[in-house]
Formats: sequence, C-alpha cells, structure tokens
Amino acid sequence: MTATRIATSTPEDVIIRGKSLTRDLIGKLSFTEMLCLTILGEVPAPPRIAAIDACLVALVEHGLTPSAIATRLVYGSAPEAMQGAVAAGLLGVGGRFVGTVEGCAVLLARIAASADPAREAAAIVAETKTPLPGFGHDTHKPDDPRTPVLFAVARTHGIAGRHVAALELLGTALDAAKRRHITINATGAVAAVLADAGIPFEIMRGFALIARCAGLVGHVHEEQRDPAMRTIWEAADAAVQYTEE
Amino acid sequence: MTATRIATSTPEDVIIRGKSLTRDLIGKLSFTEMLCLTILGEVPAPPRIAAIDACLVALVEHGLTPSAIATRLVYGSAPEAMQGAVAAGLLGVGGRFVGTVEGCAVLLARIAASADPAREAAAIVAETKTPLPGFGHDTHKPDDPRTPVLFAVARTHGIAGRHVAALELLGTALDAAKRRHITINATGAVAAVLADAGIPFEIMRGFALIARCAGLVGHVHEEQRDPAMRTIWEAADAAVQYTEE
Amino acid sequence: MTATRIATSTPEDVIIRGKSLTRDLIGKLSFTEMLCLTILGEVPAPPRIAAIDACLVALVEHGLTPSAIATRLVYGSAPEAMQGAVAAGLLGVGGRFVGTVEGCAVLLARIAASADPAREAAAIVAETKTPLPGFGHDTHKPDDPRTPVLFAVARTHGIAGRHVAALELLGTALDAAKRRHITINATGAVAAVLADAGIPFEIMRGFALIARCAGLVGHVHEEQRDPAMRTIWEAADAAVQYTEE
Amino acid sequence: MTATRIATSTPEDVIIRGKSLTRDLIGKLSFTEMLCLTILGEVPAPPRIAAIDACLVALVEHGLTPSAIATRLVYGSAPEAMQGAVAAGLLGVGGRFVGTVEGCAVLLARIAASADPAREAAAIVAETKTPLPGFGHDTHKPDDPRTPVLFAVARTHGIAGRHVAALELLGTALDAAKRRHITINATGAVAAVLADAGIPFEIMRGFALIARCAGLVGHVHEEQRDPAMRTIWEAADAAVQYTEE
Repeated sequence: MTATRIATSTPEDVIIRGKSLTRDLIGKLSFTEMLCLTILGEVPAPPRIAAIDACLVALVEHGLTPSAIATRLVYGSAPEAMQGAVAAGLLGVGGRFVGTVEGCAVLLARIAASADPAREAAAIVAETKTPLPGFGHDTHKPDDPRTPVLFAVARTHGIAGRHVAALELLGTALDAAKRRHITINATGAVAAVLADAGIPFEIMRGFALIARCAGLVGHVHEEQRDPAMRTIWEAADAAVQYTEE
Repeated sequence: MTATRIATSTPEDVIIRGKSLTRDLIGKLSFTEMLCLTILGEVPAPPRIAAIDACLVALVEHGLTPSAIATRLVYGSAPEAMQGAVAAGLLGVGGRFVGTVEGCAVLLARIAASADPAREAAAIVAETKTPLPGFGHDTHKPDDPRTPVLFAVARTHGIAGRHVAALELLGTALDAAKRRHITINATGAVAAVLADAGIPFEIMRGFALIARCAGLVGHVHEEQRDPAMRTIWEAADAAVQYTEE
Repeated sequence: MTATRIATSTPEDVIIRGKSLTRDLIGKLSFTEMLCLTILGEVPAPPRIAAIDACLVALVEHGLTPSAIATRLVYGSAPEAMQGAVAAGLLGVGGRFVGTVEGCAVLLARIAASADPAREAAAIVAETKTPLPGFGHDTHKPDDPRTPVLFAVARTHGIAGRHVAALELLGTALDAAKRRHITINATGAVAAVLADAGIPFEIMRGFALIARCAGLVGHVHEEQRDPAMRTIWEAADAAVQYTEE
Repeated sequence: MTATRIATSTPEDVIIRGKSLTRDLIGKLSFTEMLCLTILGEVPAPPRIAAIDACLVALVEHGLTPSAIATRLVYGSAPEAMQGAVAAGLLGVGGRFVGTVEGCAVLLARIAASADPAREAAAIVAETKTPLPGFGHDTHKPDDPRTPVLFAVARTHGIAGRHVAALELLGTALDAAKRRHITINATGAVAAVLADAGIPFEIMRGFALIARCAGLVGHVHEEQRDPAMRTIWEAADAAVQYTEE
C-alpha cells in the first residue's frame, strides 16, 4: 500500500501533516508558514520564515516577462478559464529563467560539502563551459540590486550560512577566472538563502512557481481591468515579419 | 465497474475501438482516419474524411496568433520541455478564438432542427446581443476567403447539408438585420462542415486543438532553428509601458 | 500607448506598484502582503491580511484531489519539468471545484447590494435550478468544519460584514426551500470572507490558484521522495475496464 | 528584423510556407501532408507520408495512460475549458514516456554517421548506465508488437534506411551485452522510421504531441458521454492512504 504523509479528510476535518486544519492551521498560521508545512512537513521557526518570505517576495514580479506575456495572451484568448492563463505563464518558469535556482543550488551544495570550499568553487568555474546558473543579468548591470538585500535579510535573521558563503566564493572564483565582474543575480541569491533556510534543492523551483503564480494572477487582474493583450499581440506580430524562403 | 470503449493493451497488441493496432490500423489508416476512429468510434467514409481533412487543414496555422506567441515565449524560457510550450499555446484555443466553432455549431443545430429554418435564423439574430459566433473577422474583410473554399470541398464530396444551409440562412438573416454585410468566418464554416460530416458539436473544439497542435509544433521548430522569442519579448515590453497610478 | 501599473525594472531596481523592491518590499513584507500588493495595488491592513491568510491556508491542501493526482501523474511522466506538473494540476482548479468561489461571490454581491437582502436570498434560491455554488460537500457532512472557523477568524478581526451576512441569509433561504440542511462549504465561506476583505469577485479564483499551487508543490515533493504515481496509475487502470461496443 | 517563414495573413488569403491556403492547401492536402508542410516547410512525397502516417497512427492511443487519466480528471474538474484538459494530458508526454523518441533518435544518428556502425552501437551500450531509450516495455513482453509493423511499413515504402538499420544494430548489441533479449519498443521504432523519413530528431517529440493530442481528445469525448472521472479519482484515493510520520 502506497502512503501519503501530506493530508487526508474526514467528515469532520482535514488533517494536514498530522495537524487539524480547523483547530491548528486556519487563523493560526500565515500562508508562508502553511505552505512550508505542507511542502516540508514542518513549520519553520520565525527566522527561517523571514528568509523564505524574502525569497518569495523577491520572485513574485519582474514586469512583462515572457511568462507574464504568455498569461496575458492566453487570458485574452480564453477568458472562460483563468486557470489556463496562469498555467500557461507558469510553463515558462523553466530551465532558462527562474529554474536556474535549482542548478545553482546543486553547485552550492557541492562547495558547502567540500573540505576546501574555495578550491571547489574554482574547480566548478574551470569545468563549466556554459554560463554559471545564478550569475549575470541582462537588465541588472553591473550588479543585481536584489542580491545584497536578500543576503542582508538572511544575515539579520541569522540564516546566512554555508550556502551564502559558497555563493560568494563562487562569485570570487568566477570574477578571477573571467578577469571581470559578473554579478550574482537574484536566482543565485535565492538559491543560497533558501538552501541555508533548509529548503532541499530539488523543490526550490516549486517555491519560484508559488511566487510567480501570485505575480501572474496580478497580470490576469490587470487584463480584466485594463487589457494590454491586443497591444502585445500587434507589437509581436509587427516585430516578426514573414519572409519566403 | 466503469468502462472505456476506447482502448486496451495486452502483451501482444493494442486494441483500439475493437480493432488491432498492429493488424488493422498501422499502415492501413491515414492519421485523419485514425483520429476519427479513436474519437468517434468509427472510420468515416472517404467523402467525410475529405471534409474533415479540409477543416483540419484550414485550422492548422494563421501566423503569429496569441497562441503561437505564447508557445514561442514558453519554449524560449523552458526549452527542456517542448510539451509545455505546445500546451501553453493550446490553452489559448478558447472561447474567444477558435472555440467559437462550438458556439456556432449549437446555433446551426437549432436552425437545422427547425420546421422553419429561415425564421429560426432570424430569431437567433434578433435575440443575440453579442457578436454571433462564426461571423466577422478582423483581418479577412470584407470576406473570409476560407469559407467558400470549405463549402466547395463539402459540396464536391456531397457532404454539405442542413448545417451548411443553416449557416447561409444565418448569414442572410444577420446581413438583413444589420443592413450591412458581415462575413461568415472560417470557424463558422468549419462548424457547419464538421456538423454535416457528423462530428458532434461538443467535441468540435477538440478537432481545432488537434489542428492547432500541429501548427504550434511548427512554431517550436522555427524557434529551434531561428528563434524569434527575444524579439517578441522586447517588442511586447516596449509596447506596454509602466505608469504609476 | 497601453500601460501597466504593476511593475517595471531598471538596472538598479525593480519598481512594483510604485514601490522599490529592494528598499520597500524584500525583508519588509510577508508573502501574503506582497501578493496583495501586486494583485490589488495596495497592502491591506493587518486585519484584512489575517482574513486573507485564513482563506489561503484553508485552500492549500485537501489530500488526493483530482488536481493533486494530475500533478503526480504528469510529474512521474515528465520529471524534467516540474512546472508542467504543477500547471497540469492547476488546470483542474476550475468551474466544478474551487472555481465555485467566484460563482458564489457574484450571488453574495447581489444580496449585499439589495434593499431587502433576505428577500433577494430567497429569490436566488427560487430561480437557481443547479446546485448553489458554495453549498454542499461530498465528504464534509452534515457540515463543512472549515466554514465556522473562517467566519470566526473574519469576526475576530472585524472583517465579517455584508457578504458573510449575505451567505448566512442564503443558507437560511436554501434550507427553508429544500426543507433540509445543506452545509455552507469552504468555497462559499472563502467567497464571503474574501469579499468582505475587499477582494473583487472576478479575481477570487486567482487566490485559489495561488493557494493550490503551494499544495501541488507539496505533492511534487512527495513524488520526488516517495513516488505514488505508479500506484495511482495502476489503480485507475484497474478501475476502468475496456468493453467493446 | 526577425523573420518567420511559416505564415502570414492578408485580407484575401493566408500564405503558409509560400502557398495559398485557399488555392493550394484546403481540399488539396491531407492533414498529414499539411502538418508536414507547416513544420518542415515542404510536403513529403507519398512514401514518406505513408511512413509518417504509420508513426502517428501508432502513437495516438494506448488506453488509460497517465496522460489520459490527467486529461479526464482535469476535464471533470473544469469542463468549461476542454483545452485545459488536453493541455494537462500533453504535459505528461515527456522525458519518461513518449519523449524517449528523441533520446533514441540522437543515438541512432550517432550510429548512422559512424564508419563502423556495429562498433558504435556496442560503444553506446557499454557507456550507457540507464535504460537505453527505445528499448524495453512493461506491458509488451517479450516483444513490442508495434515495432515489426512499423519496420514493415517503412520497408514496403522504401523508407527504411540507415536509422532503422542502426536501431537493429543497437538491439543486437544490447542483447549481447545483457545476455538476454530486450525488445525494441514502439518509441524506438518511431524514432528510427521518422529519422529515415527525414524528420529532424529535435522536433520528433512534436509529432508525438500531435498524435497524442488526438488520443486525448478521444478521452475528453468519452468523459462527455460516459464519465469515468469519479471512478478514477476514488480508485486513486483508495490506493494511496494517509500515514502520519
């Protein structure tokens, strides 16, 4: 018999991670505490919650990203199903954008576990041919302004630890190898802070999905009130022209 | 015990709608025949297949539609999962675009079932406040060029019947009421031809999804070879500007 | 020029609803406050946040719902793209399950705006043929235990107002008409509390999507650690058997 | 200026890959020919179409797969949006199931390009730790019955070439290394036949998506007529039980 440890429901209650939804959770936990409980199986202490809140807040919204545009176009085409518009945008939270959180966290774990973290960071830089996940940003140059703020929140609450240190070592190694400065971006900082807050690397993309889901709902609501869908469509259509071979 | 009549598999074969996949279907049916078999439970005769093929061909591709743009943006963001990019585009095949096939077909069924079809068509026009599904087109003015071709294919193969006639009555009634010409668009024509080919109205959007799925795969392949994603993104971002309240 | 009021980014910052992400938001707002800011354009005061938190907490998780099963099956089939698995589950947050929040809220607004709310509630019951959205539950009988807890939170924080009252009137009218008790379910209670907390009805499904997104991430993480996907698949396959026509 | 070579529309026509939709395509091409035109930029000759049709037919339907179950559950939860149900199922056409087509095709290309194909096949077997994509099947044991039929169609039409030969070499090498017989499965055979029919490996998963899209529409239609959704849900729920930690 396969088992789940997440939840079950009875006529009188819903039991989630061993707690009563009606007695222990509704009105007792914040949404951030609740989402940690359901995903991780426990409610983190306040300093960890503060760090996780900071990471979620940082990832909610970044303007007209490809995800937000996809959500708006799908909502305008199929307004009967808001869930489809939000799902379409979430499908863009993948390997090339926010999914880099995961790739970076794997590297940080290697560095954090090493007897000689600085040497390990240099080895990672040397062996990596493609851009290092968590580094560089098209808009935020020369430095991603979110990174020091995330680190500061993590330090204030005593959360910053081996993974934040590993990310800084990786940045130093990268700058030395490239002989120029490449910024630690927000997904790198989120990877380090979430790792130090005890979030397993393989589910970090899930935290990005929750944060971005909220942002995409915001874009749906603006489409409801003040639609930009046709403008987006026409601008895209005008920018890509048909050419016969 | 709930039952399915679609398919089952054994070690030696897959049985689909009572037929052996290996003996009766692979190499024996075209893809169009096969998709009708799986959806409808039977392989339509060649004239019906010709009409269905014409409708599928008509719906595959219409350039940089909102669906195609969503697919390209999601593919560029999450290239690890082509299925996500195609799914994002299909989520835009909804109530405002191709989904109108279904809305139109319901009206055609009412007219076709009436003792006085012309009167029923006029009644539908009189009672409908919003744009009639299947009529009007932003680009194709004054007339959608696909409509007469779809009707011609249906007539050539002896498929055109009560529903094509109903759509023409509806067009006549609409023009009379509006005192101007409003074109029957391709989704209207597809609704009429598919109805006369025996496709139930409630699954017509499914045929649109299959056709558009093929078109979206084409857009993914062009992104693989010659990406337009960043151009689309930048054009959309430039067209919608931030304003504080 | 079409405008967005949500966000823009500069090299030095991201401006969201007129606030600096790095100075005003990260480390300053909880995730619930942030998601309200991005969707609604303002940060609600603490009592409203408490009511919204209670609604989000109530909707996160309800065991092996159809959404959760869809997420698990898709994750097991395409583990390269967690975003696809979460999107698949969210696509099930629709008209028949959590989407009833929206349908209920529309009725509550009618009652709340009426000069004679009790009469309006009775009129709605009389004119509605299908099950009233927000009433009845398969599992939670005779009463949904989440409803009184949500109401209590709303009352404690002084949020309960015209919409909670309207829902209670609607329940009284429904019981009188049916001559038996039908419970106000959690989606009904969420509709009333969110409405009294100032959430527009047309975006309420968005709050359900954010809450459920978190729950679905929990199911993905359990699939990563302790997969149930094959068990689910085999049980479903065994329960639906093939029958030739 | 970025360009697309797929399609553009004018008031009078839609031009797809340089051809007039109304004069050259509707009523002139089968759906299979049309989908090849839009994806590949040309209409393959009849023998290639026969091979591609065989592959599409083989992939349409395989009973209650995880994809089909996801589609049925989402349709039952959100019947307002058939596109969401089909999209949910397509999201399961990924790396572990049909997506193996792509992984297999990459190996076949290596073998086909080698001066000593048999040696290259043996090298691939030796270096691959995980199951070889395109080999083995849970249900179809000891041999997948679809594989010889797909090969026979390809041979009858003169399409079978270097990639079919490469797959047979790979099978021989695998059996020799394992000292037991492991079947070439249908996704392996599809990879070989599509490759010999000139389909680039990176878009093969797209052909699987089109075929499976048709199959999923069939499952939606059965849900419309004869819903199995609740049975599936209850069976899944009963099979996975809640356990506290």
